[in-house]
Formats: sequence, C-alpha cells, structure tokens
Amino acid sequence: MPHSKQLFRMTGPDRLLFVADIAGTLVFAVEGAMAAVHGNLDLIGIMVLAFCTALGGGVIRDILLGALPPAALRDWRYPAIAFTTAVLVFFLHRYVRAIPAPAIQVLDAAGLAIFAIAGTLKAKLYKMNSLVAVMLGAITGIGGGTMRDVLLNQVPNVLRFEIYATAALAGSACMIAARKIRIPTNGAAGIGIAICFVLRILGLWRHWNLPRALDQ
Amino acid sequence: MPHSKQLFRMTGPDRLLFVADIAGTLVFAVEGAMAAVHGNLDLIGIMVLAFCTALGGGVIRDILLGALPPAALRDWRYPAIAFTTAVLVFFLHRYVRAIPAPAIQVLDAAGLAIFAIAGTLKAKLYKMNSLVAVMLGAITGIGGGTMRDVLLNQVPNVLRFEIYATAALAGSACMIAARKIRIPTNGAAGIGIAICFVLRILGLWRHWNLPRALDQ
Amino acid sequence: MPHSKQLFRMTGPDRLLFVADIAGTLVFAVEGAMAAVHGNLDLIGIMVLAFCTALGGGVIRDILLGALPPAALRDWRYPAIAFTTAVLVFFLHRYVRAIPAPAIQVLDAAGLAIFAIAGTLKAKLYKMNSLVAVMLGAITGIGGGTMRDVLLNQVPNVLRFEIYATAALAGSACMIAARKIRIPTNGAAGIGIAICFVLRILGLWRHWNLPRALDQ
Repeated sequence: MPHSKQLFRMTGPDRLLFVADIAGTLVFAVEGAMAAVHGNLDLIGIMVLAFCTALGGGVIRDILLGALPPAALRDWRYPAIAFTTAVLVFFLHRYVRAIPAPAIQVLDAAGLAIFAIAGTLKAKLYKMNSLVAVMLGAITGIGGGTMRDVLLNQVPNVLRFEIYATAALAGSACMIAARKIRIPTNGAAGIGIAICFVLRILGLWRHWNLPRALDQ
Repeated sequence: MPHSKQLFRMTGPDRLLFVADIAGTLVFAVEGAMAAVHGNLDLIGIMVLAFCTALGGGVIRDILLGALPPAALRDWRYPAIAFTTAVLVFFLHRYVRAIPAPAIQVLDAAGLAIFAIAGTLKAKLYKMNSLVAVMLGAITGIGGGTMRDVLLNQVPNVLRFEIYATAALAGSACMIAARKIRIPTNGAAGIGIAICFVLRILGLWRHWNLPRALDQ
Repeated sequence: MPHSKQLFRMTGPDRLLFVADIAGTLVFAVEGAMAAVHGNLDLIGIMVLAFCTALGGGVIRDILLGALPPAALRDWRYPAIAFTTAVLVFFLHRYVRAIPAPAIQVLDAAGLAIFAIAGTLKAKLYKMNSLVAVMLGAITGIGGGTMRDVLLNQVPNVLRFEIYATAALAGSACMIAARKIRIPTNGAAGIGIAICFVLRILGLWRHWNLPRALDQ
C-alpha cells in the first residue's frame, strides 16, 4: 500500500497494484456498508462497517508486523474511499442491491486475491518467514470480513463457507513457492492472484466446502 | 494522558485536562461494571468490563498510533481507577442503580466529549492528518463501549443509537477546524468538548437518531 | 518465548520453560480445535481457532507491550504446532473426545499457569509496573480463550466460571511478591505456577465460583 508521495515515482506494475488495491478497498467497503444496511445500523454504523470490512484486515496485519501507524491510517485516501463508499451506499442501497449477486462475488473474489497477495508481499518485506507470511496474507484477505461479522454479532462466515480463507492461503503459498523458484516478484504475484481468484470462483460455482470434522 | 512524573510539571489547563481524563475514566468504568453486573458476570468479569469500557478506546487508539505500551498501561493509576471502581460497584450496585438515568447520561456525555477531544489531540501530536485524527478521536470515545458490547455478545449500541459516535466526530472536527483558524489549542479543545457534549445531550433529549437506510 | 537460535544456548531452567511453553500451546490448541469442531467450522476454521486459542493471549500481550512482531509470529514453530494440532484434531476428534474431561482440565490448568507466569515475566522484562505485569500475565493466560469465545459468538466463559482468571491473577501476583522478597526468578516462577495450578484445580473440584453481584 504505497503512500501518496510514492505514487509519482511508481512504475507500471506498482501503479497497477496500487489501482488494484484501491479497487479492492472499494469492493469490500460496498459489501461492509450493505451488511450494515441489512443490520439496520445508522449512517455512522454503516461508515464504521465499511471501514472495518475494507481496511480491517490490513490494519490487523500492520499491527502484527509492528508497521504502525497502519497503512490504512497513514494515507488518508484509504479511509476517505471507505467513508465515501459508505455514504453512497446509504443513499443508493436500492440500486446497489440490484447488482446481480454473481457480479458482486466476482469482484469480491478479485478483492480477496489482491489483498491476500499484497499482505503476503508486505510480510516478506518485513522479513517474516514464509509460513507466517502466508498466514498474514490470509489475515489481510479475511480479517475485514471477520471483524464485520463479529461487530454484527455473527459467527464469521469466512470461517465456515466455500473455501474463502483456503483460496487466500493457496494463492499466497503459490506466490511464495513461485518466488522460491526465482520467478520475479511481479510474475509470482500475478500467479498467486490468479490462483486465489480461480479457486474462490470455482468454490462458489461448484459449491465446494472444506470438510467438517462432524461430517465424517 | 500525562504520566505521573509529568503531573508535577503541569500548568493549570493541563492539570484540568488530567482531572477531566480521570473523571471520564471513572464514569466509563462505572458504566462498564454495571453492564457486567446486569450480564451476571462474576467479580473478575466486572473488573475486565470496567477496564475495557473505561480504557479500551484509548488502548485501540494507542495501538493504531504505535504509541506502545498504551497510556492506560504506562500509568498504573488508570487501571487502578478502573479496578477500584469495579470492586465498589460490585458491593454497591444497588445504590449505583438508584442514581437517576439522566445523571448517568450527562456524565457519560461529558466522558465521551473529553475522551474524543483528548484522542484527537494525541493523534495530531503523532502527526496524523486531520481526517484520521478525527477518526481516532471518535475511536477513543466509543471504542470502550464497543468492546464492552462485543464481550457481552451484543451488537454495539454506539453504532446504533442517538448520535453518539456522531457527536464525538462533530466535536473532534470542530476542534480541528478551530485550530486551523489559529484558535489556541486549549480554546479549540474547549470548543470541541462543548460541541460534542451539547450534541449528545440534545440527541438524548430530542431522541435524535441518524437516519437508517431502510427507513427511507 | 525464546527463538530458535537461542534454544542451543539455553540452560536447564530455560529449556524447561520452553518445553512447558510448547506443551501449553499444544493443550490450548487442542481445546480451541475441539471447540471449532463442536461449532461445526470447517478445516480452516478449526486451524484459526486452534491458533487464536493457543497463541491469542500472547499476541495481545505482545501488542500491548509493543513487542512486535509478536513472539507467536517470530518463531515459526508456534503457529506450526497450532496448525498441526488442528489437522490432527480434525482427523482424530473422536479419539480426542474420548479423553476424560478431568485429564483435559488438569492439562488446561497447567497451560493456564505456565502462560500466566510467562506473561508476567515478559511484562517485567519490558519494565512494566507490578499491577500491569500481573494484568498482562492474566491476559496471556485467558486472552486466547476469550478470543475463541468471541469468534464462536459466545460470552467468554473465562469471564464467568470457576475462578479461572482469578487463579491466573493470584499466581502472577504471588510470583511478583516472591521476587520482591528476593526469591530468585526461577523459584518465584515455580511458586507462581504452583499457586495458579492448585487454585484452578481446587476451583474445579469444589465448584468454586467468584461471587456475582446479583446473588447478594
């Protein structure tokens, strides 16, 4: 998550990643705000849930890395996007609801993939070992949704359904593996994002679920 | 939140702020302890909830600022106040319950105002930009109550009712604005506290609620 | 929680503490994983709950101390133990369930005692005052179980039943007191662990509960 001053120095792939990061923030903010609307929260509640869903995963990652203040607070554009999205959803929620579910799910899968890979990359930058970097990638991807569900008093869905965290872990692990066999970081990131995205979409389409112990 | 060694160096307004800070801690601790009594928690549960309600918001703010260990742990008097209050409420909860609700609400509004403004000031001290400083002020004010409600397995009330977070945001924003037009910090803080307090009391008195999306 | 490179330099008592720490992590991971099985979470959910239950308390302590990244992420063996345990419980949960409850409870009491004392020692190492060090010891012991219950959408049991947090606080406080009267740290730690363990077992056996305010 680059800072505003760095943006001008960004080369092609970095700028692409930044745009992707902003897009992921936007999608997750819409989902958090819609969950708050359904939970009958007021405007501030909608803003809080949009912020937590969009940026909560990255904030938890940055706290665990000791990278404080977290990127989501260092660059004012991240909270600004979350709050603006919340206000727009507040006024336009009828139209947002009309967006077909598959479109939302595809965007959500893309957001998950971007966040997980970006989280893993940042953890490697902070010299974490590979197991922990993969974990922090998954936390970046699913932390916001988990926070949203805890605030809405629900058992986090991401811990229960349709290989969500699994896709994040798999994508992150593949990126680490790709880097180990000397694939350059941009390529490895692309591979990781693609694997996470495809796995998540396949999971939704085929209703894949991880096994539960009690089913056996 | 000044440290014990600094207390002796405090001038008038600083000492006033410190006393106000202690008073806010006390009020929030009473409310957290009473919520724990109603939730039928035991003595330790009451102490935990008093601590989290009184100091949780400031702890979250300090974690996000990277100001670790948080002020609430650096100065032993803050936890000591929370725990002593919890023990007193445990024994005297019948009398505490007899305090008329409006008195508690006025004190709570004062605590909210003090915490929000103190949080915003600390965030500015740590060079956060104004949007983020206002956010961190609101987190300082409402974080403790949110933590209490999550631990008691409820959707946080502060996200739902009677312009609570809104008052904190408005007070903090006005303080930032007042400083921008060169009003000295003490004056700006006074303005912010007054605006937050009055808004919260008006909200309670007139049963103001922020609009919900589903009402429209 | 020592790092892998330090292990080779460890003397007798340090090595004992490290083994105890690993054993505590293992027991708590089993309990977290079993709770996730009962909550019908999938394999990833079981891994997340095993990690949070086993290592969540230490992570919260390290965040509050500013000792970041937390020990649980610096040494890959801690997450590896939690995740391996989760996978084993997933496949073997029928056998795990056959372990008699008293055996689990004795192991859990030992884990609580070790974690609480280790947490207090680390807090003293970071120059926290005694009240806060005792608090951070208790947080280390009960934080993981609290996180597990919040994620499973329950009021944390550790805040409600059979002197659990109380045992952790008492053990930590006795260790601090023992050090104040010049008992060497290893001896003081042994005393603290024994007191916490015995209190917890007595509490279970005699069904001791802390008083509740409403009972009076």
